[in-house]
Amino acid sequence: MNSITRNCVFCKVISGETPANVVFEDEVAIAFLDHRPLFPGHCLVVPKDHFETLSDLPGELVGPFFKNVQLLARAVELALEAEGSFVAMNNRVSQSVPHLHVHVVPRRKKDGLKGFFWPRNKYEDEVHMVAAQKAIQAAIATIQKHS
Amino acid sequence: MNSITRNCVFCKVISGETPANVVFEDEVAIAFLDHRPLFPGHCLVVPKDHFETLSDLPGELVGPFFKNVQLLARAVELALEAEGSFVAMNNRVSQSVPHLHVHVVPRRKKDGLKGFFWPRNKYEDEVHMVAAQKAIQAAIATIQKHS
Repeated sequence: MNSITRNCVFCKVISGETPANVVFEDEVAIAFLDHRPLFPGHCLVVPKDHFETLSDLPGELVGPFFKNVQLLARAVELALEAEGSFVAMNNRVSQSVPHLHVHVVPRRKKDGLKGFFWPRNKYEDEVHMVAAQKAIQAAIATIQKHS
Repeated sequence: MNSITRNCVFCKVISGETPANVVFEDEVAIAFLDHRPLFPGHCLVVPKDHFETLSDLPGELVGPFFKNVQLLARAVELALEAEGSFVAMNNRVSQSVPHLHVHVVPRRKKDGLKGFFWPRNKYEDEVHMVAAQKAIQAAIATIQKHS
């Protein structure tokens, strides 16, 4: 491990240095139980190589990695007899460990998980909405030009 | 459109029947501003064909679709000069429109978005944790056997 990964909690799980309740592993990812789950069965899916955020994941890993996320969403719903699932990742802000990890959480109606999509507001006016739209369109053009 | 997609809000956006502030479109996905954003720039990334949840997305679309999600995460962070992003999908429970949509939300430290990962608790004991682990492992084996 290099100096970054040596201090990374999830790299230590991947190397086996730190024990975890692993539920799945292949060449690109590992999945294990979150120790402080929203609900039992809450898993984290983590790429085996150290990438900090979704943006940092190399293009060729996006497909294989998210196929694993999809597998885990199906499996968590099936295993916990859940009505649905919540699949989410925090990039930098609210990200407890700076190694990309996708939360896969079993959900049931009226399970008490609330407020995670709050508060929501309309745009102040159409001008502000179109400004956001145009800024994102320009950013996409910039990113695509440099990739 | 068939009977399912004819009544789907997002299929109407994709067909152009319902206007939306579109920021991106390719063969597999469309992205547009959420009308009631958590923060300005909050986008939804939606597959063009009607799939209800992440589990329903065909394997061959997972890579192309999530490459678009990654692009939108990068673009939203860049466009809104954000410190990070929140990327999430609700499958069935808390899913307002039954057509897969990934929320891409710009984040800043102390932006007031709180409580979305709450309440979290430890497992009652090791036995309960291992039971969840084994149930998910068994579900993965079942899913893989039938795919």
